[in-house]
Amino acid sequence: MAKKLKIGLFGFGCVGKGLYHVLNNSTGFKADISKICVKDRSKSRDVKSELITYDKWDILNDSEIDIVVELIDDAKEAFSIVSEALKRGKNVVTANKKMLALHLKELYDIQREYKVSLLYEGSACGSIPIIRTLEEYFDNEEILNVSGIFNGTTNYILSKTINEKISYAEALKQAQEKGFAESDPTNDVEGFDAKFKAVIIALHAFGLIVPAEEVLNIGITGLDTQDVKYAGEKDFKIKLTPVIQRLKSNEISIFVLPRFVKSTDPLFNVENEFNGVVLEGKFSGDQFLQGRGAGSYPTGAAVLSDVSALSYGYSYEYKKHHQQHPAGFTNDVVLEVYFRYRTSEQAKLIRFEEVKEKYTGGDYNYITGKIKLQTLIDHKDLILENKLFVALLSDKVELADQGINKNEKVKHLIEVIR
Amino acid sequence: MAKKLKIGLFGFGCVGKGLYHVLNNSTGFKADISKICVKDRSKSRDVKSELITYDKWDILNDSEIDIVVELIDDAKEAFSIVSEALKRGKNVVTANKKMLALHLKELYDIQREYKVSLLYEGSACGSIPIIRTLEEYFDNEEILNVSGIFNGTTNYILSKTINEKISYAEALKQAQEKGFAESDPTNDVEGFDAKFKAVIIALHAFGLIVPAEEVLNIGITGLDTQDVKYAGEKDFKIKLTPVIQRLKSNEISIFVLPRFVKSTDPLFNVENEFNGVVLEGKFSGDQFLQGRGAGSYPTGAAVLSDVSALSYGYSYEYKKHHQQHPAGFTNDVVLEVYFRYRTSEQAKLIRFEEVKEKYTGGDYNYITGKIKLQTLIDHKDLILENKLFVALLSDKVELADQGINKNEKVKHLIEVIR
Repeated sequence: MAKKLKIGLFGFGCVGKGLYHVLNNSTGFKADISKICVKDRSKSRDVKSELITYDKWDILNDSEIDIVVELIDDAKEAFSIVSEALKRGKNVVTANKKMLALHLKELYDIQREYKVSLLYEGSACGSIPIIRTLEEYFDNEEILNVSGIFNGTTNYILSKTINEKISYAEALKQAQEKGFAESDPTNDVEGFDAKFKAVIIALHAFGLIVPAEEVLNIGITGLDTQDVKYAGEKDFKIKLTPVIQRLKSNEISIFVLPRFVKSTDPLFNVENEFNGVVLEGKFSGDQFLQGRGAGSYPTGAAVLSDVSALSYGYSYEYKKHHQQHPAGFTNDVVLEVYFRYRTSEQAKLIRFEEVKEKYTGGDYNYITGKIKLQTLIDHKDLILENKLFVALLSDKVELADQGINKNEKVKHLIEVIR
Repeated sequence: MAKKLKIGLFGFGCVGKGLYHVLNNSTGFKADISKICVKDRSKSRDVKSELITYDKWDILNDSEIDIVVELIDDAKEAFSIVSEALKRGKNVVTANKKMLALHLKELYDIQREYKVSLLYEGSACGSIPIIRTLEEYFDNEEILNVSGIFNGTTNYILSKTINEKISYAEALKQAQEKGFAESDPTNDVEGFDAKFKAVIIALHAFGLIVPAEEVLNIGITGLDTQDVKYAGEKDFKIKLTPVIQRLKSNEISIFVLPRFVKSTDPLFNVENEFNGVVLEGKFSGDQFLQGRGAGSYPTGAAVLSDVSALSYGYSYEYKKHHQQHPAGFTNDVVLEVYFRYRTSEQAKLIRFEEVKEKYTGGDYNYITGKIKLQTLIDHKDLILENKLFVALLSDKVELADQGINKNEKVKHLIEVIR
């Protein structure tokens, strides 16, 4: 480095403070945060007041600032800041998964057009270097599957319900008290956050920009004590796992659902705020990465690692996107699930392609078997509103016309004809 | 890439064949293996005969060859090939951990002097991208600890003994039959292989070149059914784990010993030929990476990833080595261990600093407590020859003058004086 880098920082919340601390305590890397843009004038902040600005243009128009680090909550405003900064020739680091997932194509194009670099390791699974690993290490290897635990808030809640046998509501309350969940937890508990991360990872693992709004996310809000009991009886744990899988049709399937995981699964021991990523390479076989999925210092360290990479000219090459990548994404697949419902009307609405088990016990009933992903998409509102619970029994996805037992299909046809 | 890279390959064993296959089935990357140098003229090989040469100079003197990939067994000959190739301006990929661990300083110097790049991701933990992750992602973060399962052969044997309750001898036999262990398994079962990998990783995690011959390695040859029974009673598994730890004295401790691991430890579920690396960053916290530690395709994929990195000019910057790194390495530490012995004479020879438990049951006796690493170094031969078993009860290491209870010290002094 010829000169000390100057950083303009947007946002001074949990991650912003973490970056500030990590940067000032780094052994190797030297850079200065020369301005911090924040929104709330009433908050007192533990930094020199001359660093603080309330006007984004103070950073965006400052030609001395080399790198913009965007760490605010508001995805819309974040996109405006990030795209403006890139267009002004500044390299940018962000950890805003929602903003990224909703604007991947535009951000990809801006980087190409303006020859700038946007890095966002901190956006996906906190301190786990998953994007860099996919970009650099698996750059020439076909990836078959990516799954894992991408959201620390829900994993904290699920760990509590399973290990301490407390209710979902109580676990959510504890998570909120400890600062692991926000007062409006929708983004986490309904699986939006995990979905955004899956969409980002899908680009680096498979080279595809998948429209987030077409990807199903069902979170853990339907979880009831009976589901926890079911898991306990089978020695399963429950994890919220995005699945991104390459299909035989050369398409990918991508969705977010809870899953029952066995004790031999690497995700089984990923507890509380930790995240884990399981990936399968065509030649490398199964790979697993685990680390802190959130938190001030871990995410701050991920952001600093990106800032450091910018200092030596690093940019994502989106190698998979330029290679021969899957033809597209499809929801036309069949999953093996557990479906817990309350009334027989609910069961009638959710059509299974193949039923393996059926248990009725009054207000607690379940079916296990194969179901089309489209069926879940069509009945998402029904599931959420009635607090029904759907969880994967396997992370393996099959194409709709391959996953269904032919005899079952015939049987169903006969039933329909009758 | 302006032109298609030409590779000269040394060795066509398990990994060499794997590279050949992976390269020819890679989606993105195109390179040609233009010559393969092998030793044994009597073997038939499934490649065009014009590719084969028996003379290393056919590759080393070929100015058309850009990259040398060295995948032979013989560490001495490997060093000669690698250093010759580098001095001729060729970039080199190797997976030879013994060669690397014994020549790190020279290879570092040659790279600097001749401005060439030597990559060796495949040398440490097969398909786990540990070196790249340390170099690129943790480049500015202080690493506190690295541990894990670095050797697939011993992990396969240990998994068999624990999970199938068969003897060490029987498990070793099975491993040899399946090709996971060599006919002379010394290098693996006595922990040399794991040590070499630890020495390589120590350079990238801590910036230190540690002399391998001063690092203690005690493997699993002493393992007996009673040790397995002890593990079973406590719900432990036994893993061979190198430990590299930063001490309060700003030195590092590094050694290889078996360890009892608990069910909550990420290493607990790393079974058979899989490897796992646990590392702790000052800010990122605990990180864990798991993948196939050996095998034709996984290691071949790691080698190809390095070849691909060379194609865009990548070289290790040894960033930690250039930063303020630990002052040195020391064996002056205290460990908490389980020591299983047979005769009271054996127990008398091995001096504990602090005894926690003592169990005597005839031919099966053990002591748990704190012991100096130097005591184990001094009695390594006694331990190996008598098939005594030493295993860590904790992966945390303390400096010798801090780890021992002061009263115990005084008590011992009094005993010595008496």
